[in-house]
Amino acid sequence: MIDLYTAKTPNGRKVSIMLDECGLPYEVHSIDLGQNEQFKPEFLAMNPNNKIPVIKDRDNGQVVFESGAILIYLGEKTGKFLSPSGPARAAQLEWLFFQMASIGPMMGQLFHFRNYQGEPQVYAVERFTNEVARIFNVLESRLSQVPYLGGDDYSIADIAAFPWTKLGGFLGVDMDGLKGVSAWLERVYARPAVQSGINVPA
Amino acid sequence: MIDLYTAKTPNGRKVSIMLDECGLPYEVHSIDLGQNEQFKPEFLAMNPNNKIPVIKDRDNGQVVFESGAILIYLGEKTGKFLSPSGPARAAQLEWLFFQMASIGPMMGQLFHFRNYQGEPQVYAVERFTNEVARIFNVLESRLSQVPYLGGDDYSIADIAAFPWTKLGGFLGVDMDGLKGVSAWLERVYARPAVQSGINVPA
Ligand SMILES: N[C@@H](CCC(=O)N[C@@H](CS)C(=O)NCC(=O)O)C(=O)O
Ligand SMILES: N[C@@H](CCC(=O)N[C@@H](CS)C(=O)NCC(=O)O)C(=O)O
Repeated sequence: MIDLYTAKTPNGRKVSIMLDECGLPYEVHSIDLGQNEQFKPEFLAMNPNNKIPVIKDRDNGQVVFESGAILIYLGEKTGKFLSPSGPARAAQLEWLFFQMASIGPMMGQLFHFRNYQGEPQVYAVERFTNEVARIFNVLESRLSQVPYLGGDDYSIADIAAFPWTKLGGFLGVDMDGLKGVSAWLERVYARPAVQSGINVPA
Repeated sequence: MIDLYTAKTPNGRKVSIMLDECGLPYEVHSIDLGQNEQFKPEFLAMNPNNKIPVIKDRDNGQVVFESGAILIYLGEKTGKFLSPSGPARAAQLEWLFFQMASIGPMMGQLFHFRNYQGEPQVYAVERFTNEVARIFNVLESRLSQVPYLGGDDYSIADIAAFPWTKLGGFLGVDMDGLKGVSAWLERVYARPAVQSGINVPA
């Protein structure tokens, strides 16, 4: 049994999708970020970075924070969605880190600056709009060649990227020219575990 | 023999430090980012995200981009600086992802907005100044308790974080109160491979 500390955000949904994909039983603990529950001492004891998602594996007591580390932990625990070695593993990890270092942080900043209620942030909005457009073109260059980010097989790289990438249109990315990305979004969303995991917490 | 495509930046230096730590022979290929060499077709064929660092392992032809994926690849290739399993591995990966998702991207944005030559970006500078200060406090909370980010042992988490964290003062972080971080910076810099790797490319 896994305890999952999460909220209704893309980073949390990566983990609920992975748990559903792996068929691992888990108990959801909703953390109310608006109420600053991520700053409570018992939460900070699990993640000093005050962010969801966090898991606790009741099998061995292991706590893990950072969604990328959680996906690798669960992939290695189950032997699923992360190749044990070779070129497939290298590709899966490359694209997992691309999600963690570029897709997530840059879409997060774009969201923030677009929605900032003070003086309009013209330059910053333009900067992050361009960077996110560039990132989607990088994804397109990959997904117009292979069915999944890691290559032939669906993996933790797709699980990490899906909840963010599906927000592209909402953040103003012109998805029309991105045939490879759009087909991949449909391919991934066709998976029952993605449809269930994306709705956690209910 | 490893081919390393790099430049004089923190993300490149993570990899040269790791290669020096592992005692792996490598050939340095300097990529001139100012001349846009990262957009050349032969570079994009290795990394469609047009960024250094990239490695090519001549033993098996494997190309790897994203510094976090490269560190894991080299850690698993050599059996060094990444525990094969258990709590130490989980902690090493947590802090590696914290570097990749928070330290790097947020310090990168702070650097950009502080140095932007157009209209002063008062709000964005304040935002990223605060976020970087918060990140350094998270590091302090960890490094005031354990000697290395992964716990007892020096690992790829430290190698990833060092080249960025040492720029804290330069980016205006008040390092005086950060005794744990400061002691860790000295502890890591005392390593000969860190002193050599940080100067690559020469
Ligand atoms: N790199 C982290 C990012 C996690 C993250 O940004 N979590 C957000 C919600 S999506 C959060 O908990 N924010 C609360 C806060 O920062 O106070 C990961 O992937 O786990
Ligand atoms: N998440 C990437 C970031 C790499 C990165 O930002 N590289 C910069 C230099 S530090 C670069 O090559 N920039 C050139 C460009 O973006 O055109 C990694 O850690 O490998």
